[in-house]
Amino acid sequence: MSSKNRLIYLPLGGAGEIGMNAYVYGYGAPGAERLILVDLGVTFPDMDGTPGVDLIFADIDWLVERRDRLDAIFITHAHEDHVGALGHLWPRLKAPVYTRAFTGNIAARKMEEQGVDTQALNVVGPWPQTVTAGPFTVGFLPVSHSIPESSAMVINTPAGRIVHSGDFKLDKNPIVGEAFDPDLWADIAAKGVKVLTCDSTNVFSPNPGRSESTLGPAIRQLVERSDGMLVATTFASNVARLKTLAEAGRDAGRSIVLLGRAMRRMVEAGVESGVLRDFPTVIAPEDAADIPRENLMLIVTGSQGERRAASAQLARGKYMGLELKEGDTFLFSSKTIPGNERGVLRIVNALSEKGVDVVDDGADLYHVSGHANRPDLQKMHQLMKPQMLIPMHGEHRHLREHVKLAAESGIAAAIATNGTMLDLTGDAPRVAEYIEAGRTYLDGAAQIGALSGVVRDRIRLALNGLVLVTLIIDEEDEPLGEPWVEIMGLPETGRSNASLVEVLEEDLTQLVARADDKMLMDDDKLEEALRRRARQSAQDEIGKKPEVVVVISRLSA
Amino acid sequence: MSSKNRLIYLPLGGAGEIGMNAYVYGYGAPGAERLILVDLGVTFPDMDGTPGVDLIFADIDWLVERRDRLDAIFITHAHEDHVGALGHLWPRLKAPVYTRAFTGNIAARKMEEQGVDTQALNVVGPWPQTVTAGPFTVGFLPVSHSIPESSAMVINTPAGRIVHSGDFKLDKNPIVGEAFDPDLWADIAAKGVKVLTCDSTNVFSPNPGRSESTLGPAIRQLVERSDGMLVATTFASNVARLKTLAEAGRDAGRSIVLLGRAMRRMVEAGVESGVLRDFPTVIAPEDAADIPRENLMLIVTGSQGERRAASAQLARGKYMGLELKEGDTFLFSSKTIPGNERGVLRIVNALSEKGVDVVDDGADLYHVSGHANRPDLQKMHQLMKPQMLIPMHGEHRHLREHVKLAAESGIAAAIATNGTMLDLTGDAPRVAEYIEAGRTYLDGAAQIGALSGVVRDRIRLALNGLVLVTLIIDEEDEPLGEPWVEIMGLPETGRSNASLVEVLEEDLTQLVARADDKMLMDDDKLEEALRRRARQSAQDEIGKKPEVVVVISRLSA
Repeated sequence: MSSKNRLIYLPLGGAGEIGMNAYVYGYGAPGAERLILVDLGVTFPDMDGTPGVDLIFADIDWLVERRDRLDAIFITHAHEDHVGALGHLWPRLKAPVYTRAFTGNIAARKMEEQGVDTQALNVVGPWPQTVTAGPFTVGFLPVSHSIPESSAMVINTPAGRIVHSGDFKLDKNPIVGEAFDPDLWADIAAKGVKVLTCDSTNVFSPNPGRSESTLGPAIRQLVERSDGMLVATTFASNVARLKTLAEAGRDAGRSIVLLGRAMRRMVEAGVESGVLRDFPTVIAPEDAADIPRENLMLIVTGSQGERRAASAQLARGKYMGLELKEGDTFLFSSKTIPGNERGVLRIVNALSEKGVDVVDDGADLYHVSGHANRPDLQKMHQLMKPQMLIPMHGEHRHLREHVKLAAESGIAAAIATNGTMLDLTGDAPRVAEYIEAGRTYLDGAAQIGALSGVVRDRIRLALNGLVLVTLIIDEEDEPLGEPWVEIMGLPETGRSNASLVEVLEEDLTQLVARADDKMLMDDDKLEEALRRRARQSAQDEIGKKPEVVVVISRLSA
Repeated sequence: MSSKNRLIYLPLGGAGEIGMNAYVYGYGAPGAERLILVDLGVTFPDMDGTPGVDLIFADIDWLVERRDRLDAIFITHAHEDHVGALGHLWPRLKAPVYTRAFTGNIAARKMEEQGVDTQALNVVGPWPQTVTAGPFTVGFLPVSHSIPESSAMVINTPAGRIVHSGDFKLDKNPIVGEAFDPDLWADIAAKGVKVLTCDSTNVFSPNPGRSESTLGPAIRQLVERSDGMLVATTFASNVARLKTLAEAGRDAGRSIVLLGRAMRRMVEAGVESGVLRDFPTVIAPEDAADIPRENLMLIVTGSQGERRAASAQLARGKYMGLELKEGDTFLFSSKTIPGNERGVLRIVNALSEKGVDVVDDGADLYHVSGHANRPDLQKMHQLMKPQMLIPMHGEHRHLREHVKLAAESGIAAAIATNGTMLDLTGDAPRVAEYIEAGRTYLDGAAQIGALSGVVRDRIRLALNGLVLVTLIIDEEDEPLGEPWVEIMGLPETGRSNASLVEVLEEDLTQLVARADDKMLMDDDKLEEALRRRARQSAQDEIGKKPEVVVVISRLSA
């Protein structure tokens, strides 16, 4: 291995998935690079693969082992998949954190929630302000997205300039926060961009992205023609959308109620950090009772069908004293993220049962994406003219397509999924190393490795049900009484119409009766025999092999 | 209750959901109506709500209790959600079953798989052939759909004619099976239609539906421009699509391989029943090894991302000796049913990792729906001019929208979800009664009620993990040794960094040590105390309250 300094890139999360963004850059002698981390986000669990899990983080063991070389953490923007793990993982990294004001407001709340001191958190202004972190000089380059103050990172290194796009779209009028400024970006490009690390989310969307500002008229029209109570849901962090919705409501003579903690928190953060001005007055839910329903507009969380969010609560019944009924209108000013369809449709159907008219974004009238579409990505490639392009923030299919797109413009590009360390020193990206990059589950208060087997066991219990067998062996290694069986998550009767528990107890009693001394003296053997018999008997009786836990209690002589 | 004869409609499944269709019609004195059943389908489980369940059926208890009055079962077509429960539930109903030839071929296989005699199964020809069942005269009216020989049921009753649409689209060239014949339908309408019970699936699709025959050119183009191996997946039962795909492959000089049991079975059924002619020659997977990959076309199951189907297997690695690689093409000639997105994307990304080019139906080139769109439904309303319209085959939102659509044409319509019995005797539908309509789970070999709690327990285990506590109480009601704890699906350590099992054992030992005689003599009390303490200790240690099973073994004096 050469001791010549090198520039490296290592995604720990976010590359090969949409979620839990965490990108490491390093510069220095191989194995002794000084490091910075861009973003520290979460991804969300689901019943299919991660039942009972609360949040999912990138596995940062690699970085923790090298934290003496970690000079800074930069957070591009305040979306959960970019900042959500900061409070949970910062204590293992303990590096200075840099953000812009709005992001910092949210980041501080995240750290405080986990009892982490926010002293390490530094709010910095936009480019040309920069932060020096080891060999890096880093600035926040304003860019438009679906949350205020989203920023690309301009990372100046001894080997050249990296532009890490963060999440972005090319919006010249994003309503709240800074517009995309092509001149400013052209300035950055003018000095030469070695690497563009680039958002890939919408690489399959063929048409140019639309501005947040295009939604106002359609939303106003809808608000004006609605008769009863009007409810709108969107992503809580889309402060611009909240403003558009609230203004449309206010102008139509409706009082605005914000429902859902995340939404109130985002508006607060917007006001506190100075990015959100002139937000219409909101009233408390408890004051809404006195207002005729046709003069009310609720803006609520839960656009993705989350069971505990305001949308789901309102769909089920009364929530915070408010209840929907026939003639009311419910607007999804959002798109459904793949995988959330069932939850969203559950809400739509529950609202349908109440006679509420549901308006969704079928016709693209009430939502625009926060990410650059394919032609926007091409524009960005042309504007930045990077020597290399590394696609990020995408599933494998997005990364692969983005590499193809870059290749069309003659830009050297490579797919690097989580754990793939690239050497960016030369003219083209080169794989330097593969490191173990996994996931960490937040499970209640515990952090557990994705491969620990804990969640796998839960999935097995859910699929197969449980048989519990207890047996007491006395001081002379003889069974004391018969095996005792309990079941959980299994049918009470099967093919023979007899109780499953009794069938199992009978079969296991026979097994114990026939067991020789050798088996009765060997816990492992006896346990295994009981487990196998229980599984086989269950298979015969109910056609499935359950999980079996055997507890042998041995009375000591 | 009047003893005047009445005409009733009672959906047991399929109304308020898309799946497990089962519709009862009855005619006679209230409470003594003679009954027929149209369709007996399944719906599919998911990890969210029904982990470990194999299939879901309508709860047919109401009908079983009245089976002496059930004169016939009619199956409109061979889709799983219309015929899938026949083999499982027929033994509880034992009524004659009527189908057309292709449907009968599939129905017989379903019955045989469950060891049910197929003697009750009768294959009948299309309208004007009819079957007399009690007071009903019933005929199969050919209609186009996405499977051969789909039929509407013309149900002549003493109170007038019912047309039960089944699943349908207005396709004049469906490639395989009968075209929609407006003249034939006009004939049926000419005598007056009292009730149209109508498919609602695509009521939100604003444009007229497209014919199956429109796909040929695009599919041919894709096949011709593909270089490596070509794989296409679609719904196995869409025999017309299979034919279009296979012909395109054959004409481009490719040998055709069908992968997946369901697909081979459907083609077999098509050939055996005479609806499918001139299907290109297929070769066995084991013979494909000798053929250059650019001369191969696989048509495979698993368009919905099912883990065990051929698509998923090919995405993961070698399957039946066949393996995909860079330069191959994979076509989804299908749409993703809401809820299946994650599974489908898993396959797409796995294929992307292999360098396979995935073509999906983003641009509507390679798939058309089998259901009537909104304008097609309007055409059907106008053609049938029914006195009443009852929307079926839809979630609540579809039924509600379809009622609105019918109202626009001045047709009396009503939403009747599963369990809502309508009296159709008069001029407009009237709710007669609500009966308990639930779901039955096929779980291994057992059929269990959805509300039995079995599956709820499994979900709890998956979300919360399991603590198992065993304690032996001796002949003097004194604890013999200490409580023994095992865990499953829980982190091994928590806040204190000590073993969770040891922390729990310590806390429970203390509890037992302090327990008074009254508690030690009372299993219920002791169990409850141990459970509560275990949950609380786990909460303190790992931040979640697990499921706890306590087994107290009492040595008899």
